[in-house]
Amino acid sequence: MSDTSATQNTYPYQNEPRWSRSEKALARKVFDAALKRELQQVIREAKQMANQITEPANLWELERYLSERRKDIDRRYDFRSSRLTRVFGTLLCERRISEEELRGLGEDKMKAIRSSAKVLSEDAA
Amino acid sequence: MSDTSATQNTYPYQNEPRWSRSEKALARKVFDAALKRELQQVIREAKQMANQITEPANLWELERYLSERRKDIDRRYDFRSSRLTRVFGTLLCERRISEEELRGLGEDKMKAIRSSAKVLSEDAA
Repeated sequence: MSDTSATQNTYPYQNEPRWSRSEKALARKVFDAALKRELQQVIREAKQMANQITEPANLWELERYLSERRKDIDRRYDFRSSRLTRVFGTLLCERRISEEELRGLGEDKMKAIRSSAKVLSEDAA
Repeated sequence: MSDTSATQNTYPYQNEPRWSRSEKALARKVFDAALKRELQQVIREAKQMANQITEPANLWELERYLSERRKDIDRRYDFRSSRLTRVFGTLLCERRISEEELRGLGEDKMKAIRSSAKVLSEDAA
């Protein structure tokens, strides 16, 4: 009962599943691998854009691209427990991770992640 | 006499020399050439930095470099008559233009430009 007020204070995350230590470890591994892949993709893209610079406007396009990618990556990769199902839902929706990689998580997390991915893919459609 | 209040309103630029049409045309040519050289230098530097990216931190260094160069160039290249002697003083101090290129300007402008360059080089020392 003493939990009630604390739970209310954490709204809207009161329904987030609790992550066990091993689930957290798996989550961290998948999270880091996805982040690494995404950053490698930005590196490749930035090198290609830089190679193709022929005029000053291209410089500021590269600056804007990097700035947007940095902010977007900062926003999407949030390892707090209260955000993890949403984070993985987004990555799944974007096909940056596969369900296969998440094998080992409890069915409660998988269900929340799939549900989040589904909502996002419907929003994007 | 009716000029007095208008002149006071333009402080601290009330002592700026008046630029003739031919001086303005020369100034524009020198200004544009210096800006072009500086932008070409940023392009070369950005391409080199991009080529050397090996890790994510390098991406954000490139972003910061581009952002700082853009703001610095925007700030320094100001073609308003009231700023021109200061702008050319800065470019002369930075050795981005030569006195030779400015040949054709009246001695009043040359004196103001040299004086501005001298102050800036003393500040930088």
